[in-house]
Amino acid sequence: MDRVFNFSAGPCTLPLEVLEEAKSDLLNYKGCGMSVMEMSHRSQMFQDIIDAAEADLRDLMQIPDNYTVLFLQGGGTLQFSMVPVNLLRNTRKADYILTGTWAKKACEEARKFGDIRVAASTEEERFTSVPKLNAGDFRSDADYVYITTNNTIYGTRYNYVPDTGGIVLAADQSSNFLSEVYNVEDFGLIYAGAQKNVGPAGVTIVIIRNDLIGYAPENTPLYLDYKIHAEKGSMYNTPPCFSIYMAGLTFQWLKRNGGIAAIEERNVRKAARLYETIDNSQLFSCPVQAEDRSRMNAVFTTGNDELNAKFVAEANEKGLVNLKGHRSVGGMRASIFNAMPEEGVDSLIHFMKEFERTNQ
Amino acid sequence: MDRVFNFSAGPCTLPLEVLEEAKSDLLNYKGCGMSVMEMSHRSQMFQDIIDAAEADLRDLMQIPDNYTVLFLQGGGTLQFSMVPVNLLRNTRKADYILTGTWAKKACEEARKFGDIRVAASTEEERFTSVPKLNAGDFRSDADYVYITTNNTIYGTRYNYVPDTGGIVLAADQSSNFLSEVYNVEDFGLIYAGAQKNVGPAGVTIVIIRNDLIGYAPENTPLYLDYKIHAEKGSMYNTPPCFSIYMAGLTFQWLKRNGGIAAIEERNVRKAARLYETIDNSQLFSCPVQAEDRSRMNAVFTTGNDELNAKFVAEANEKGLVNLKGHRSVGGMRASIFNAMPEEGVDSLIHFMKEFERTNQ
Repeated sequence: MDRVFNFSAGPCTLPLEVLEEAKSDLLNYKGCGMSVMEMSHRSQMFQDIIDAAEADLRDLMQIPDNYTVLFLQGGGTLQFSMVPVNLLRNTRKADYILTGTWAKKACEEARKFGDIRVAASTEEERFTSVPKLNAGDFRSDADYVYITTNNTIYGTRYNYVPDTGGIVLAADQSSNFLSEVYNVEDFGLIYAGAQKNVGPAGVTIVIIRNDLIGYAPENTPLYLDYKIHAEKGSMYNTPPCFSIYMAGLTFQWLKRNGGIAAIEERNVRKAARLYETIDNSQLFSCPVQAEDRSRMNAVFTTGNDELNAKFVAEANEKGLVNLKGHRSVGGMRASIFNAMPEEGVDSLIHFMKEFERTNQ
Repeated sequence: MDRVFNFSAGPCTLPLEVLEEAKSDLLNYKGCGMSVMEMSHRSQMFQDIIDAAEADLRDLMQIPDNYTVLFLQGGGTLQFSMVPVNLLRNTRKADYILTGTWAKKACEEARKFGDIRVAASTEEERFTSVPKLNAGDFRSDADYVYITTNNTIYGTRYNYVPDTGGIVLAADQSSNFLSEVYNVEDFGLIYAGAQKNVGPAGVTIVIIRNDLIGYAPENTPLYLDYKIHAEKGSMYNTPPCFSIYMAGLTFQWLKRNGGIAAIEERNVRKAARLYETIDNSQLFSCPVQAEDRSRMNAVFTTGNDELNAKFVAEANEKGLVNLKGHRSVGGMRASIFNAMPEEGVDSLIHFMKEFERTNQ
């Protein structure tokens, strides 16, 4: 089979150009005689790779100098612990907004380390919307407020950045990182697992304001202290070198294609076309409130489990794969991350219309 | 430049066949239409990859059924914390043997979590040997004894497995994992970062006896509890999929080449030839006591910093790279892990003899 259109929610489709470049250099990176996978992380060659990755990311996101960029291991799950361990530094209070499974898990984990309050939750409406909050909704002495900017499972997205009235805002941007323009200064900390818009699973990017580093309690397990990683340029220990290299290739691909503003425009276009198809359909519907719909993960259903299964199976045969919805939501989910080309979305739309015609 | 002989201490040279197979499947794994890097970790395709990797590792090491195999993130550094967090389960006492930098770091980290005693250390002799200990040297009520079976920086190796008198033995085997036959049942826990004999950095293998799982204290950061990983087959969260895939390819390569007994034979041969060259030389010498020399990392020196630098530079020009010793030891170090072919060692020996002739 040729390459498919892969609508997986992550790990997920990567830019073809990035994979081709990695393939071409896989046995011998730029003529140095070895693979990136074989390089000492202490070599100048690898230092150049990680430095370029960081510089390109800083350029793409316009990350100010008073923020540190880290490339870590452990995924979002380890960040669920590291965020409270490091940011609960004064009153040890934090306010969480629950907009889905990952926010809930993050909140539950944080309770181990401090006084955690749920500022708002949309769980009662099955996470089909995102609450609109402002400074008055948070404890004014909280050490931080925590949000998940895009909810992969439920297909929702914050269409605004909450005003916390000056409280540090920590954001899990795993599933919409680099997909839209953010002002980094609105956040004290941003993190993102790579396996959506960055590269292969195995590296997690943390962007943290420098004044928030250094507050992990004594006896914190060493790896969980942002400080050791910040001091050593993410090389306190051997980093996930190849994943960082792949992330760097993706950053270069983004820059070649106009940066985040350009990819955001394309993402808005892709999502609009897909949701328009759903909304104009007699067969498909999307449970998410229109204004809170994710641009990365479109959730939809025929309302009939059997028909949903038929849709997923037939799409699969046409090379439109991984369209089955998350088990906690059911139905279908099309994840259309940065690397999903417009042709992929158009093919899906074409198939949806055909499926609707033949299944009425 | 063609591919070099890479004597890096890790990340380090990988089997050429493994890299070639990865390259060939990089854009389209076995015709499935996507890269391994793009696969959902919840897909059957990836489940088959991780299952095969585990099965092949179990087969290679003859891992008994009452041991669990985990593929984790965070490297040795995270294991420095996870081992005490999970294994200090009764008296909260553990005995450490210090044979190098990594053992010292592990010991220091463990002090955060319990009553840690140094059972022996060879630091005073600059870690040029490994102490010979037996059951009487350990506290009989210790929860575990900790060793580092091969010391990458100092070029030493335990040529025996300490008899602990029944106390659980935990071993960092990062730098000699899969290079020699061990009886897994001699250990309660074995861990190894991948970036020596397994694959690219970013995955750490843990082999743990099942009765030792489940003792992490309440409020342990979630990722640090072996139990959650054991219960979910290393997929509590998104694992480092591509690194696991590469590890699996290496396991298959080892099996095709006769398994661990065969590679051990080759490793013994490679190391013997190299140390013989050093010992027969008037120029080079090895500071390590003969019986404790590592088969993976051969440390040697001319005794003259300038000459050492000249050796490293000229070797580099001949495609024998990364021979500079660790900064804390100086001189040279040739890491000759499983994937270093005999021709690589022979080329190095040839160059050493030539260098000696022209620099007397």
